[in-house]
This record gives sequence, structure tokens and C-alpha cells, in this order.
Amino acid sequence: MLAPERRPEPLTSPAAATVFTMVLTQGPVSRVEIARRTGLSSAAVTKAARPFIEAGYLEELEATERSGPGAGRPASPLAIRPDREFFGGVKITGDELIGVVTDLRAQVLTSARRPLTDFAVESVVADIAALVADLLAASPAYGQRCHSLGLAVSGDVDRAAGDVRYSPFLSWRQVPLARLVARATGLSVTVENDVKALTVAEQWFGEGIGAPSFALVTLGVGIGCGLVVNNEVVAGSHGVAGEIGHIPVNGEGPACHCGGRGCVEAVAGTAPILRAARAATGDPALTIDGAIAAAHAGDEAVMAVFARAGHAIGLAMAAMANLVGPERIIVTGDVAGLASYGLFEEAITSAFAGQAFGAAADCRLILRPRPFEQWARGAAAVAIQTLFTL
Amino acid sequence: MLAPERRPEPLTSPAAATVFTMVLTQGPVSRVEIARRTGLSSAAVTKAARPFIEAGYLEELEATERSGPGAGRPASPLAIRPDREFFGGVKITGDELIGVVTDLRAQVLTSARRPLTDFAVESVVADIAALVADLLAASPAYGQRCHSLGLAVSGDVDRAAGDVRYSPFLSWRQVPLARLVARATGLSVTVENDVKALTVAEQWFGEGIGAPSFALVTLGVGIGCGLVVNNEVVAGSHGVAGEIGHIPVNGEGPACHCGGRGCVEAVAGTAPILRAARAATGDPALTIDGAIAAAHAGDEAVMAVFARAGHAIGLAMAAMANLVGPERIIVTGDVAGLASYGLFEEAITSAFAGQAFGAAADCRLILRPRPFEQWARGAAAVAIQTLFTL
Ligand SMILES: [Zn+2]
Ligand SMILES: [Zn+2]
Repeated sequence: MLAPERRPEPLTSPAAATVFTMVLTQGPVSRVEIARRTGLSSAAVTKAARPFIEAGYLEELEATERSGPGAGRPASPLAIRPDREFFGGVKITGDELIGVVTDLRAQVLTSARRPLTDFAVESVVADIAALVADLLAASPAYGQRCHSLGLAVSGDVDRAAGDVRYSPFLSWRQVPLARLVARATGLSVTVENDVKALTVAEQWFGEGIGAPSFALVTLGVGIGCGLVVNNEVVAGSHGVAGEIGHIPVNGEGPACHCGGRGCVEAVAGTAPILRAARAATGDPALTIDGAIAAAHAGDEAVMAVFARAGHAIGLAMAAMANLVGPERIIVTGDVAGLASYGLFEEAITSAFAGQAFGAAADCRLILRPRPFEQWARGAAAVAIQTLFTL
Repeated sequence: MLAPERRPEPLTSPAAATVFTMVLTQGPVSRVEIARRTGLSSAAVTKAARPFIEAGYLEELEATERSGPGAGRPASPLAIRPDREFFGGVKITGDELIGVVTDLRAQVLTSARRPLTDFAVESVVADIAALVADLLAASPAYGQRCHSLGLAVSGDVDRAAGDVRYSPFLSWRQVPLARLVARATGLSVTVENDVKALTVAEQWFGEGIGAPSFALVTLGVGIGCGLVVNNEVVAGSHGVAGEIGHIPVNGEGPACHCGGRGCVEAVAGTAPILRAARAATGDPALTIDGAIAAAHAGDEAVMAVFARAGHAIGLAMAAMANLVGPERIIVTGDVAGLASYGLFEEAITSAFAGQAFGAAADCRLILRPRPFEQWARGAAAVAIQTLFTL
């Protein structure tokens, strides 16, 4: 993040962060309930909440019900005022930028795309700035009350430093992206790995709420995984974690671009699926959309390609569940992933059930296609998290 | 644990637990340094430490050096008095009980074994009580200052409740072992899964000190794994975690007792190794010791059996490192495991290096045979942890 680190004025202590985050992610919720869940005293909760109310981040709702049987005073729940502040989020892909503006609860208010024609750092930075300017121009309120921007990019990202250490598809190494984009936009900027950003969005605003441990698996060009264990995103001591795509479930199966063999991604990524579908049909010009259409139309050879990919994904998910024991696994994907999802689903779930160890089979699989904007929303969620974490 | 939950009198607050645990696991250490590492004020550290000194758990060492350049007052480090209290630890195997008495730092002071002839719960409880009585008789000090016992057993254990939910080799289901052994011995009893117990011993007193994330892999009849992520042992939301033995790295390879296919354990556990070595030599009476001897003597077919097992273990370790990113992996094993370790080592390390994703290959592998008593020491470490955790 760029030097002038923004802190909302009411964020004065760890207790303040805890109280605000609980209302943000689990509200509306009464002070009594916040005290019960956090272990803070009622007085501490009231003291922490007051400045947020005064600054317009929180509001007190009308008391609608009593706080419990026999409780004397009705509880007035605290709630977020979502439009107190807005957040930008941009996902950088190999083809284009996808941008959103969200409110405080990471609800997408507007979105836009901009093609990327050049991977030179200064060119991408200029494109991001132009896209953000377009987005913020959609409403005068955005211009006035949006000060933070999140960026999501696949690859090795040093969030604390604001650097993209390595992005294979942009061919970037050690790019101080947060600093450059902050200078170009005047916003506080956080950069995060794209799968981790989506994981943060689920943890704070999605299926991960209330789950101390969960996993997110993303299907697409690569197979990614975000892990939350004991309420914290797993970062990996050496900067590597969640590489579910490189679990070798195919024995001596195909070589993978990572240097390993039999990796999930070498069978179930978009490219190997397309390659196998072309071989199966004898049509070297087949597209991934064409392969999906052929499978949906009942072409058994192409269906078998998708089934094999789904089987590999399901085995890797079981391996992950056997190791880290998530409470639930959210499976999601980009455009190609979600369109073909119906083709994977049975193979994924049956392979998972067959390989999960004992009670790990109780892990709930939540299968959910997602519009591509969700990646940009993840970036905005990271900006929100940065702002409200001490 | 049995009802009358013991708490050392000085353990009055979370700060007290933090200070004591830091001296226990990282001491001797000065108050100034404790304050720096924990974020507590110097006054809070001094206040927390005083009752532990008065109760004889901590002592102040002579000031030997100044606390830093320009520091006025020499720092007097705080240190544990290891013989202030003693702890029992018993590992329950399918053949025998292995017991130890340790000091406060989990140093083994004495050990003993007792064969198990009967798996009936009351019989095992009586054997544990007899073994513990023998151990404590070794010194009058043990009888006076040992009040806590840890038990380690493979299988599904509910540590909080003190129950063995399921032990396959004892054929136990839902046995309230802590309560039964507490009644039979008069000690406070904690039960933990054996691999988790060994992980706790590493975390508090071994290679895991100072590593927020590390993994322990145990080789033997089964292939187990203990994981510490962000300073916490991973328990698994459904009670399953660390099942590295059931990562399917052998493609459609052999069926496993878990119901899966291609599991590491189905190739690299003691039983499948022996089976493969018997097939390779044509000797149906070959023992595991005989197989190890044959491989050491240069029998290439038997060496290939061990190499195949090591390869599977190395792949599974890489899959684990790719997913959770431990700072280091400690590889250890029981008698058969360690005797054959030299036979695995090259295959493990080369398979790991080939499959680790990017910087995950920087994860340090610490290869260490261990005497079997270490399992019982792990049980004692769990008793220590229970006593000093609020
Ligand atoms: Zn790979
Ligand atoms: Zn298995």
C-alpha cells in the first residue's frame, strides 16, 4: 500500500476492529450479542461502537424484539451503513481488466471492463487508472467517498509490500504495483493474489461466514484453492499455498508445466481439456465452447474428457479435505468453468465421496457458478479488509 | 479430563499463560524480551511472572549480560525450574504400553513398557494404572509432584471430552478413557490422538519452536501427518485432518483399506511393503526386518519396493507442501520406519523436489529417526500443554 496509510478515525483499538468487523460481516447484531460472541464487556462494545456511529459507519436500528426471554430492555441492533464508503476492485486477467465499485458490504454497484492490449507495466497501470476513473464517474458519491482500491492478479503477490513478485501470464517480476497504481489514481491500493482475494470475499461476505475452516476451489485455466484454517487465510511459509492443481492424482500421468507429473491441472485445466477434446473428436479447430456444446449434445468421447477432468478434481479435493479438514468446500469457476460445470459435477462429487477419509466425507460441497465480476468483487473485499484491520 | 480440573495457582489470566508458556518453550528469556515478543507491557510481564516464581515454577537467573547496547540495567533472564513438577505419558499400541515420566520441559527421566494381552477396556485401564504406578515408584519425587498424565492412542480422539471415539486396532468405540484412567490412577488425564501428541511435543519442545507453520510426517504401519498452521494444530472440522496416507498419488493403483484407490498408505505402509517384498523375493515367510536386511544387502527387487514406497511418500509430502506451505517438514518413524529410513530417503527427497510447486521446494525436510519412547513423550507434552493452557 502507498505511504499515507488510511485509517478510519473510529478504528482506534483491536477491540474497535473486532466490534466493527462483527457488525460488518454478521450484522445487524445487538451490543449484547456482540459482547457474548467476542468476550468483550458490554461497556467495551458500547465504547468501541460509538465513534463508528458518530462517523456514520454504523447505525442503531429500531429495537424490534427483546434480546432474550425475560430480558428487560429491548436490544437495538447495530447495523452497517453500507453507502458510508465505496471501494474499487479490479481483476487483471491476460485479456482485460474487470472493475467494480462496491459498498461497504462488498455489494457490486457498478462494473466495467477494459481490454488489455499491452502488458508493459506503465501501460497496464494507465489502463487501470482509466478504468477506475470511468467507474467512479458513474456516481458523484463514488468520487467523494471512494478512497480505497483492491487489485487481484494471479501469481505470487506480496500483499504487505504491495508487490507482484511474479505473474506468469503478464511476464512481470517484482513490480511495485500498489505504489504505481496509488500514484496514478490517488487511492490507497492493496494488491492480492486473485484466489486469495476471492477467499477473503467468501470469508467476510459469503459462504465462509461463521466457518472457522473452509476451502474455495476455482476451476478454469488453472485449478486454484484458497484455504481458511482456524479463521485465518493460509498464506504458506514460502509464499506457496492452495496449489491444489499440482496434487499428483494421475500417477505417472501427463507432465505438467510445473515440472511435476500427474497434476490435476495437467488433466483438468482448460488447455488440457481442449487438447483432449480435439484428440477425441479429431477436430483440431475445436474451441472450448465447441467442446462444451459437443458434450452437452451427448458426444460420449468428449463427455469422457470432462468426466476424467472432474474425477481428477474430485480426488484432489478429497486429498485436501483429508489433510486440512475444511468444514465446507465452495467450488466455483470462470466462464468456461461454469458453463462446463454440469459436465464435471457428477464426476467431482463421486470421486470426492470415494476418496474422502471417514468423516471427511461429511464436508459439504457447495457448487456455484459465478459471474466473472466476482473476481473484481474479491479485490474490493480485500480493500475493505485492509481498511478495517489494524 | 476428569472433573476436578487442576490449574496451577499462578495461572490466573491469559497473560500469565502467555508469559509462562514463552519461558517454558523459549526460555531462559528476559522480561524485556518477553514483553517485546508478546506485546505485553513490562509491568504486565513482571506481574504475571511473580506468582510463578513464588510457586517455584520459574526462577530468575543471574544477570550475565546487558539486555542491549546502551541498556542501563542488566537483564535477569527467567528460566523454568524443570523439576518443579513431573508428568506421565503413555502411548497405547496394539502390542504394548510404552510409558515415560518427564519433567516440565518434556525431558524423559524414566521409561518402561508393559505388554498388552487383552484389549478389553477395563483390562487396558488396569494395565495403564499398573505401568504408571511402576513409573512413579522410580523416585519419591515423582510420587509427590506428578499429578498429570497424558495418553496417546491412534484413531479418532475427542481430547476435550477425554473420549476415544474410535480406535481401529483396539476395536474401541466411544470409550471415556480419560475418566476411567483418572479414576484408576488419581491423576488428571488428557487423551490425544498419537500423531497430534507428537506434533504438540515438536511445537512446544522440538523442531516446531518458532515455526508458525510446520508439518510432522510419521512413517510406520500407517502414514500420518500432524499440521501446525498459523501456530495452531489443525484439527479438522469433521475430526479428520493430516490424513496424508490417503492422498491418492498412485493413480488407479492398489485399493486401500479406507475405500479409496492409489493411497500412499496402500503402497508405503508396513503391510503393503512386506507384501510387495514377499512377492519380489518369492519368500512368503519374509519378515519386515528380513526385507530391510535384504534391501541393505543389495537385493534390487526389494530395494525397488522401498524406492516405490519412498516415491509415494515424497509425492504426498509435496502435495501437502503445495497446499498448506509448511516452513519445514519433520519426517520420523517407529522402529520399522527408522530402520528402513536409509532405504526411503533418496526416493522421498527426489520425489518431493520433483513435485513441489515453485518456492514450496524451499521447505526444509528434517529426516529424523526417533526411539519409540518419543510417542509416550508426546503424550506427556500434551499433559503439560493441558495444564498450562487456559
Ligand atoms: Zn503441476
Ligand atoms: Zn486410503
